[in-house]
Amino acid sequence: MQYMIGIDLGGTNIVCGLVNERYEMVDKVKRPTEAALGVDHVLDKMADMIDELFAKTGLDRSHLLAVGAGIPGFIDPERGVSIFASNLKWHDVDVAGRLSVKVGVPVFIDNDVRMYVYGEAMSGAGRGAGVVHGVTIGTGLAAATVVNGELYYGSGFMAGELGHVAIDGETTPCGCGLTGCLESVVSATGIVRQAKQALEAGRDSILRESYERGELSAAHVSQAYDEGDALAVDILTYTGQVLGKGLAYSISLLSPDVIVIGGGGALAGERLFTSVRDTLQRSVYYGYLERLTIRPGELIDDGGVIGSAAFAKNRAEKLRHAAAGGAM
Amino acid sequence: MQYMIGIDLGGTNIVCGLVNERYEMVDKVKRPTEAALGVDHVLDKMADMIDELFAKTGLDRSHLLAVGAGIPGFIDPERGVSIFASNLKWHDVDVAGRLSVKVGVPVFIDNDVRMYVYGEAMSGAGRGAGVVHGVTIGTGLAAATVVNGELYYGSGFMAGELGHVAIDGETTPCGCGLTGCLESVVSATGIVRQAKQALEAGRDSILRESYERGELSAAHVSQAYDEGDALAVDILTYTGQVLGKGLAYSISLLSPDVIVIGGGGALAGERLFTSVRDTLQRSVYYGYLERLTIRPGELIDDGGVIGSAAFAKNRAEKLRHAAAGGAM
Repeated sequence: MQYMIGIDLGGTNIVCGLVNERYEMVDKVKRPTEAALGVDHVLDKMADMIDELFAKTGLDRSHLLAVGAGIPGFIDPERGVSIFASNLKWHDVDVAGRLSVKVGVPVFIDNDVRMYVYGEAMSGAGRGAGVVHGVTIGTGLAAATVVNGELYYGSGFMAGELGHVAIDGETTPCGCGLTGCLESVVSATGIVRQAKQALEAGRDSILRESYERGELSAAHVSQAYDEGDALAVDILTYTGQVLGKGLAYSISLLSPDVIVIGGGGALAGERLFTSVRDTLQRSVYYGYLERLTIRPGELIDDGGVIGSAAFAKNRAEKLRHAAAGGAM
Repeated sequence: MQYMIGIDLGGTNIVCGLVNERYEMVDKVKRPTEAALGVDHVLDKMADMIDELFAKTGLDRSHLLAVGAGIPGFIDPERGVSIFASNLKWHDVDVAGRLSVKVGVPVFIDNDVRMYVYGEAMSGAGRGAGVVHGVTIGTGLAAATVVNGELYYGSGFMAGELGHVAIDGETTPCGCGLTGCLESVVSATGIVRQAKQALEAGRDSILRESYERGELSAAHVSQAYDEGDALAVDILTYTGQVLGKGLAYSISLLSPDVIVIGGGGALAGERLFTSVRDTLQRSVYYGYLERLTIRPGELIDDGGVIGSAAFAKNRAEKLRHAAAGGAM
């Protein structure tokens, strides 16, 4: 049995997992990122976490095939470089090159959203499907597409910023430079913003209490929805409509077999999906919907690690195949 | 030099062209389709047109590599079957199998829009680009994407029905079952419909004369735009906005290097593109626009034939490579 390491690098924490060839998590560890201490500190910590996992599990390190790391921001997966990660303050960091020297096996990196969706496609809610389109709903919203086991990149490896399409009727300024981006509605942040604005405009809701305590979260909105709160119902219905209208384009342009909805926002589940499905019935040719399944992610917590490990396996095997003289 | 035949099969006419390896049209012929006379009549006519082209040009028929045919409707390009073509009244017609028996070389078929966009990608406005997204604006609107020289298909070979996404504020019923499809605005038909509805509502315009003669066409709207007619300006501006909002999703999901706008609607040119570009500035992350070029098609009339020929060459070479034991 060969093993891969999958790393999910976030602004707050690093999660490092040891994954087997069946894409099962053998063991994982979690440490604070401490990006402020510099790139080498973060890369050394990753290497230490890998050592720790082999020590803990007693597995033979010579069976480690490769390391994959999912990193936020813009990535060049071919060169293995983090081009820009705002929350890590990384610019043009050769992560693959520098980390592979420390760990002695090939390292492959990609954007964290793509790694997550790749994990769902290979071993989660999209397993066995030809075209898997994944959307992660968290602080923001982003998408990725896996076509017959390979990530789709587009020009500049930039495909997938579905959260940064400006939509009609929305006026929230976005850090990307646009106004009224889709993720200003469809994200945990967007759900909370909608609730706050309605409460500040005087709307009645059981959400007012948590708002006044300064604790209002997307989870509170889901809970209020379950209690029949009209404002929460309106917010999640509208959020589902906006997501559905966006996904209508994903479906028409990509014709996916499965759409996986992941990230914390997926926890809203059917509260959101019902509205998404209703919107799609009105927005997209029925022939697409007949062949499409929309599912919540199965790997919510581990998706980034398992996806990174699966990605590393895919790339390492391709490199070996190419080195052995085969065509790719 | 090897040659390919490219066939552009429409409801009214068949255009059959002899194309060389540099994707240059050597000669072409055009005949009425006469689909009502049956499938064999149409396929026999195609075979006759091919004979005629070799007779006319005096070229050696043994240099014919393959035949490609672009066919409207739903196609299974792997099996070479026309699944459904409403204007030909074809259901499950094994075009590739039946035509290859008549012509003695392999025949490859695909949807006419994909063939056109493939032609633009290989030898027209998208030549040399990695990701080419093409939109044809004619009676309706459809899209196709070529990624590193290969068409993108999606589940069921169905990707590309961008014209059948329902948009806000539109109420025209569509044959696809939806209401307010994007192509009810962004098409020659949609431009004429908008003009008629405005004139019937009493709006003042120089278009009234051609409307009352029953001759109003999209070309009249373009002409009126050039003469500063306010209604024509409003229609093409709004049409460009709707197209721009749709393309914002194409761009975010696919990150194309080039968007090619083809079909008769492309004749509106800058009258439409100015509004498309203005809308994109407000609707999509600027990083995409920095690397993107939006161009009218270069092969408007010959795109279907050249694309079909190029597609046939690609498939025939792949088959040969596979037969020779190489991986694809």
